[in-house]
Amino acid sequence: TFTVTADIFAEGHDVLAACLLCRPASSRKWQENRMVFLGNDAWQGSFVTDLPGTWYYTLTGWVDKFGTWRAQFRKRVEAAQEDIGVYLREAAEIVEAAAARADVADAPRLHELAVLLSDDSADMVERGKTALGDELLDLMERYPDLSDAFTYPEKLPVYTDRVRAGFSSWYEMFPRSAGAPGNHGTFKDVEARLPYIAELGFDVLYLPPIHPIGHTARKGRNNSVNAAPDDPGTPWAIGSEEGGHKAVDPRLGTLKDFRRLVKKAGDLGIELALDIALQCSPDHPYVKDHPEWFEWRPDGTIQYAENPPKKYQDIYPLYFETRQRQELWDEMKSIFTYWAEQGVRIFRVDNPHTKPFPFWEWLIPEVRKDYPDVIFLAEAFTRPKIMYRLARLGFTQSYTYFTWRNTKQELTDYLKELTETPVRDFFRPNFWPNTPDILHAYLRHGGRPAFITRLVLAATLSSNYGIYGPAFELMQRTPLREDSEEYLDSEKYEIKLWNINSEHNLKDLIARVNRIRRENPALQSNRNLWFNASDNDNIICYSKHTADRSNIVLAVVNLDPHHTQSGWFNVPLSAWGLDPNRPCRAEELLGGSEVTWHGEWNSIELDPARIPALIFHIRQDPVE
Amino acid sequence: TFTVTADIFAEGHDVLAACLLCRPASSRKWQENRMVFLGNDAWQGSFVTDLPGTWYYTLTGWVDKFGTWRAQFRKRVEAAQEDIGVYLREAAEIVEAAAARADVADAPRLHELAVLLSDDSADMVERGKTALGDELLDLMERYPDLSDAFTYPEKLPVYTDRVRAGFSSWYEMFPRSAGAPGNHGTFKDVEARLPYIAELGFDVLYLPPIHPIGHTARKGRNNSVNAAPDDPGTPWAIGSEEGGHKAVDPRLGTLKDFRRLVKKAGDLGIELALDIALQCSPDHPYVKDHPEWFEWRPDGTIQYAENPPKKYQDIYPLYFETRQRQELWDEMKSIFTYWAEQGVRIFRVDNPHTKPFPFWEWLIPEVRKDYPDVIFLAEAFTRPKIMYRLARLGFTQSYTYFTWRNTKQELTDYLKELTETPVRDFFRPNFWPNTPDILHAYLRHGGRPAFITRLVLAATLSSNYGIYGPAFELMQRTPLREDSEEYLDSEKYEIKLWNINSEHNLKDLIARVNRIRRENPALQSNRNLWFNASDNDNIICYSKHTADRSNIVLAVVNLDPHHTQSGWFNVPLSAWGLDPNRPCRAEELLGGSEVTWHGEWNSIELDPARIPALIFHIRQDPVE
Repeated sequence: TFTVTADIFAEGHDVLAACLLCRPASSRKWQENRMVFLGNDAWQGSFVTDLPGTWYYTLTGWVDKFGTWRAQFRKRVEAAQEDIGVYLREAAEIVEAAAARADVADAPRLHELAVLLSDDSADMVERGKTALGDELLDLMERYPDLSDAFTYPEKLPVYTDRVRAGFSSWYEMFPRSAGAPGNHGTFKDVEARLPYIAELGFDVLYLPPIHPIGHTARKGRNNSVNAAPDDPGTPWAIGSEEGGHKAVDPRLGTLKDFRRLVKKAGDLGIELALDIALQCSPDHPYVKDHPEWFEWRPDGTIQYAENPPKKYQDIYPLYFETRQRQELWDEMKSIFTYWAEQGVRIFRVDNPHTKPFPFWEWLIPEVRKDYPDVIFLAEAFTRPKIMYRLARLGFTQSYTYFTWRNTKQELTDYLKELTETPVRDFFRPNFWPNTPDILHAYLRHGGRPAFITRLVLAATLSSNYGIYGPAFELMQRTPLREDSEEYLDSEKYEIKLWNINSEHNLKDLIARVNRIRRENPALQSNRNLWFNASDNDNIICYSKHTADRSNIVLAVVNLDPHHTQSGWFNVPLSAWGLDPNRPCRAEELLGGSEVTWHGEWNSIELDPARIPALIFHIRQDPVE
Repeated sequence: TFTVTADIFAEGHDVLAACLLCRPASSRKWQENRMVFLGNDAWQGSFVTDLPGTWYYTLTGWVDKFGTWRAQFRKRVEAAQEDIGVYLREAAEIVEAAAARADVADAPRLHELAVLLSDDSADMVERGKTALGDELLDLMERYPDLSDAFTYPEKLPVYTDRVRAGFSSWYEMFPRSAGAPGNHGTFKDVEARLPYIAELGFDVLYLPPIHPIGHTARKGRNNSVNAAPDDPGTPWAIGSEEGGHKAVDPRLGTLKDFRRLVKKAGDLGIELALDIALQCSPDHPYVKDHPEWFEWRPDGTIQYAENPPKKYQDIYPLYFETRQRQELWDEMKSIFTYWAEQGVRIFRVDNPHTKPFPFWEWLIPEVRKDYPDVIFLAEAFTRPKIMYRLARLGFTQSYTYFTWRNTKQELTDYLKELTETPVRDFFRPNFWPNTPDILHAYLRHGGRPAFITRLVLAATLSSNYGIYGPAFELMQRTPLREDSEEYLDSEKYEIKLWNINSEHNLKDLIARVNRIRRENPALQSNRNLWFNASDNDNIICYSKHTADRSNIVLAVVNLDPHHTQSGWFNVPLSAWGLDPNRPCRAEELLGGSEVTWHGEWNSIELDPARIPALIFHIRQDPVE
């Protein structure tokens, strides 16, 4: 349901009426929804976007001549003004004009009423009653005079995504690490891993690029410029003699294997997300076939990607401003539609902020023409205004600064920006405690409690979240160097052997958190986030509730992974529509215990060594 | 000085540059002002609107290719990258392209530098120094490559008014009451009153309509429907056989007398403001000559103006939606331009909210085409969004709800809305403690202290304010009925004899307040209003300061006209850039005393029977 509020007014004291007009982009016919007057010149209306894709809406307002006449006439009658005959004849003119606009079924009756109103020989009381009666009002509302109606000159777009755009739980894994020890993992190995992922409760499985990897300037372990012969290279160095963005790395299997994986995942309620990185290894077929898609230097070489002093010698950027721009752009689009044809409907787009805005502004609606249910996740770790711009251009979800927001103040400020400002109307955050690129100091130093805290925060603050596994559930936290956010022996450059059956893991907790998310609709939205006061800066408390308040969830989290913290926190019973003078029941969903709270303040003590976070489902027994 | 801040960004990590473009509407040529980078993708620029009337501005941003190259090259040099020759040849290409765009004076040198940069046989250190040198930077900034520049597609208007639009002190009086006892006052009598008005310190003299008054359905004393033969009628019932909106009531004098009054007032620094009420008495020549400009009823009459149950039997509204709309609108415009030709540049427009918005949207720029210095004051006592709409359509100033905002909370909330929200960018309030239509209960019951309080509030909270005199300075406060905001024996319906020499008046205080306004630039603006905390709800404290803080004024007002109130109030020395650890000198401008304050909190006691308000000029002696 999409609700629109607008100021609608005219000069003078006339009674107004207004309609909210809406239509899906595919239809030319506007649906009309009468708006309701809220007071202070504000009006409201709403419509249900029951088709995915773009909808348009606009507004029409008009002076309700009969309504105006009726309101004034009522005052005259109340003030017992004599000489109301002339006013009734004015009404007759308005009614006669409506008769001329009316359907054949109503026109005769309207005409009859107009005659009665204008008949000075008829009984005045009878005429007055007719003028103010319900029958006339109903008929007149059916045939408004729209000749002077004003329609807002712009049609405003609103994009309707499917439910998973707003509520999704992502699991990222490298397929090549899914195999048996010593083997290069394959799609079949990933298939075998699906039950594990389903058990953890994730509904999106995101794979880094699955294409052939270049060999020129291939990176070795730990980003070394000298790869050993058996180093597999980074999956983001896309393309070799074996093909480019529409090919599958033969080491992973065949396209058929891939399609089978999509299907098998779907059977378990898991959707596959592919990583689209619009860049090439020096061995990508584009380099030979389309040299004009690259920017050449005076010495006849192509400058590899870099962000000085960082160098990506194994990657060439594409030149989006090339003179053969439309050819290049069309080819880029065909990458997305190719994988959409294979059944993929979620794309995690690598570094979209290094490609021109007009490219995305063009590409996203182009892809959605045929696949309106495609979800685009922007991996834009860049400045805030650029991230927001990409969201406005059509990206469905975006990575965020969550990973670097760890204190109570940082989390509160950032979440308020995301959920309470206009940003919430176009930007859908996706929170990640870790990624293959980011191992934050909080995880490096905080151990198991830090992993639990960040998991609970991501999964309950944001309706979209994800983890990079199995590194996450196995609590991997050894950095390349002490002050580095890079993993030591990063999976980006090598095949990892993960012991997912290790006892030191967070599997059960993750599964429980994801089940809590599924079972509590309050956690499936972000606009409903409230921060609740607490008197300890290490304890953050917040809650979410459904619009009808039938589901209320409150989380209390100790942000200090090293020490027990205790304090008072606020339980805003009145704001939730509960009775603050009656006890309320708080079922703790991670541990399964239930407590009774009295009043709006309660105390808590959280020992991170046991559990640093609690998630309560709040309810009050009905009054008997 | 008009300052523009904008978010300007591009994909990737390129260095950008931006210009603020501006021009007066009369010129086609844009002036370019380089914008400055503020951080976080925000840029700022400004320009001086040194001509009155409409200005346009827009923005252009572009990728600074040389700047981008230079920033990256500097990093390479710092990182001691080998192989910088190819980068220098890239720079040579950029410089050669600039040479092609350059003036004849600079092109040869640019070409020379390009050759040096690309010459691999030249000394590498020398080439690097040249590439990063000031000479090349200066030359390159002169010839930016604008081929991919993006210009904001809209030209944004800003209207430049003259100073009095933002800072004015109004005095309203009925000319017909300016005569000797028993006589109908004339323009000559008003002329004799000018020194008095100048002494009070006002710079705008506003006269209710000066046109012939109708006799049909003329109102008698106290709005009686039966006028006595010698009742003069209300000046807003405009028009008779003696003429309409372009005529002068012969009882007031001739057009020549009026023009002389305009001249004499000007000599004393006083500008005349006329009241334009676009409505007619039944005797107005328009009714006979242009019956199509009125809305006729079924019984062949014209409905007089009303706001049921209020009736204005002596006034016909004009029908702005008439089919002869353009004729009517043109004639309305000619009323304004007629009086502009007589030297009038300020119009107080009666009830603009009962005329169509498109009418004002058309009329105001039309009048300003020939008279860009005209000030329009909207007498729109209506709902807030309509008042704001009229301001957006071009009204220079507006009446407000000030008269009905009397408590500390009401005043604070309303002033914050007017001075801290986007409203401040288009709506200029004009505060009136009283008008011929409004005698508020606060004045009725509060006596002399109430008049002083409301005067000080109006004159120091708002840079534009006015009083209806001599009723105000003589503290007239007898209402028609106990609960009525109408004056008993209202001047609207009769000639009043005012004893302006009575000892019971506020003349000296008003003169002092107006002098304080003139001498303290801080009081000549509203955007600089700050409310200061005080611990007593009857004491309101606020301050204004100039941007350079060279003038700081603080007011403390007891809002309770009946009792002495005392309390602590905040003096925000640090926020003003003063030293909170040193004493500050506060000169009280109404009484002339001076006190020394220590620290940021001071106490006050205000006895309304003596003086309910104090206005301090704050300063700190320079450190020796």
